[in-house]
Amino acid sequence: MRVTPYTPEVLVREVGLRDGIQGIATIGTEDKLAWLALEAEAGVPAFELTSFVPPRILPQFFDAEDVIVKGKQRCRAALAALVLNDKGAQRALASGVDSIVFVISASATHSAKNARTTPHEALAVVRRLIESVLVQPVRPKITGAIATAFGCTYEGRIAPDSVLELAEGLASAGVDDLALGDTVGFAGPRQVGELFARLRNELGDIPLGAHFHDTRGMGMANVLAALEAGVTRFDASLGGLGGCPFAPGATGNIATEDLCFLLDEYGVDTGIDLEKLLAARRWLAQLLPNEPLHGALSRAGLPCAIPT
Amino acid sequence: MRVTPYTPEVLVREVGLRDGIQGIATIGTEDKLAWLALEAEAGVPAFELTSFVPPRILPQFFDAEDVIVKGKQRCRAALAALVLNDKGAQRALASGVDSIVFVISASATHSAKNARTTPHEALAVVRRLIESVLVQPVRPKITGAIATAFGCTYEGRIAPDSVLELAEGLASAGVDDLALGDTVGFAGPRQVGELFARLRNELGDIPLGAHFHDTRGMGMANVLAALEAGVTRFDASLGGLGGCPFAPGATGNIATEDLCFLLDEYGVDTGIDLEKLLAARRWLAQLLPNEPLHGALSRAGLPCAIPT
Repeated sequence: MRVTPYTPEVLVREVGLRDGIQGIATIGTEDKLAWLALEAEAGVPAFELTSFVPPRILPQFFDAEDVIVKGKQRCRAALAALVLNDKGAQRALASGVDSIVFVISASATHSAKNARTTPHEALAVVRRLIESVLVQPVRPKITGAIATAFGCTYEGRIAPDSVLELAEGLASAGVDDLALGDTVGFAGPRQVGELFARLRNELGDIPLGAHFHDTRGMGMANVLAALEAGVTRFDASLGGLGGCPFAPGATGNIATEDLCFLLDEYGVDTGIDLEKLLAARRWLAQLLPNEPLHGALSRAGLPCAIPT
Repeated sequence: MRVTPYTPEVLVREVGLRDGIQGIATIGTEDKLAWLALEAEAGVPAFELTSFVPPRILPQFFDAEDVIVKGKQRCRAALAALVLNDKGAQRALASGVDSIVFVISASATHSAKNARTTPHEALAVVRRLIESVLVQPVRPKITGAIATAFGCTYEGRIAPDSVLELAEGLASAGVDDLALGDTVGFAGPRQVGELFARLRNELGDIPLGAHFHDTRGMGMANVLAALEAGVTRFDASLGGLGGCPFAPGATGNIATEDLCFLLDEYGVDTGIDLEKLLAARRWLAQLLPNEPLHGALSRAGLPCAIPT
């Protein structure tokens, strides 16, 4: 059995290997494992490592089982996989993944395009899947995630009430934690603060996570607003890798290194070594020379006093 | 006499024409005035338009008097100029500028390099200059600004006590408002929130302004922290233009358009039309094709629902 990793005050979850690469060229399994190892070595405690969707839809995840089995051999970090349906849940359970992220979308249009279903049908499916996981003798942790929780390129703003209803549906099904995703980078800090405060008030103690994209530059402000509202888990991708095919000009997730810099300065413990994280980013830039990376810390480096 | 412009809840002050261009190629007076007019037309209520430093040191400001006189003819916005010394103060008073920004630096090393003086000597000089402005029968407004208030590339972190002491020195001299500058992009939101909260507590009702650079991606989070601490004036430059010769890899000020997007979403009134502001940014990109511009909103555009 693997040793339980150190538990930080705020959990940073690297999603570059899932969300980051989902719109770009396929990366080989060994490169994925090298990426994982570098960030795990820097202290990143959790990864969304792959997605159990049919490879004909997202060929990037051709090696979902393999990368989990080998990843578990190579690091102690908690490894998660994204699941949308029954078949995916079966594959995830069989893979021995540490955590399953069930995603539903708050936007009807996004839900139709992404999962060919309505938000309520998706919730019903996911509730049934959660039930099937909960009865396992040894089970992975379950995250319930709501995509487009703050807005959608097709529908604009999403009503907070409908997000709350879906969140209640996930919470009452027995998820271990709940995450809201600003999938296309619509949110600003007031909306973020208010929606998470409502979740906190109405759902009690369930751990809350946030998944922000930095499309309109609000990523770090949204992190601050979420922190202040009690969010303790943040998704991010190294170098802000990624984009969204449905948001022209969109960048990817918030950059892991900028997130960690903010959390450090804010005084919360993440267990992550920023110098090692920046080294991992340089490795990633070499691995993907044609992909634009984002984030500011890597340009300027850590603040330090230069001898005059 | 010019009609007093509309007073917004939070004042956005465009500093691109001063801080933004200070490290780049000289722009002609007519181009400066066109830039000013475009942003004033978008509703930007205040500009730091030039700097009264010797043109042999900063040739970009060769036309300081001219751009103020002509700028006042062409728009109703409040026009400010930066002043460091006696000669500059005389020129500023003679120019009819609406507002003088007196800058001192909290870092001894930055102060020595930037103004060839110590922070305390600079404070003494500025206090005397403020006195000379206050006795004018019709006088410009006076902003007291403290550069490198959060850190310095040469000295690292700056002690909050020393910033507070300088701020008290400026406030007691009779400035109309006080601004803190994160000149090299060292600050994070906790430091920002705490330092402005101390100023608010110890200096009472004096209006507070913030001047952030986005060097390490913390700009928008710092704005949020400052807003929550009661800051009501924010400096920014269109397209995040600028950089800092003393901070390798540094970007410029926070981007005006991203700042306004955050303020809009936060629900505070700025009086600024974001579409017109983005149009002004496109004009600026054409004016300075070789200067990298920053900011995220311009890439992705305003959030809107796309018909499916």
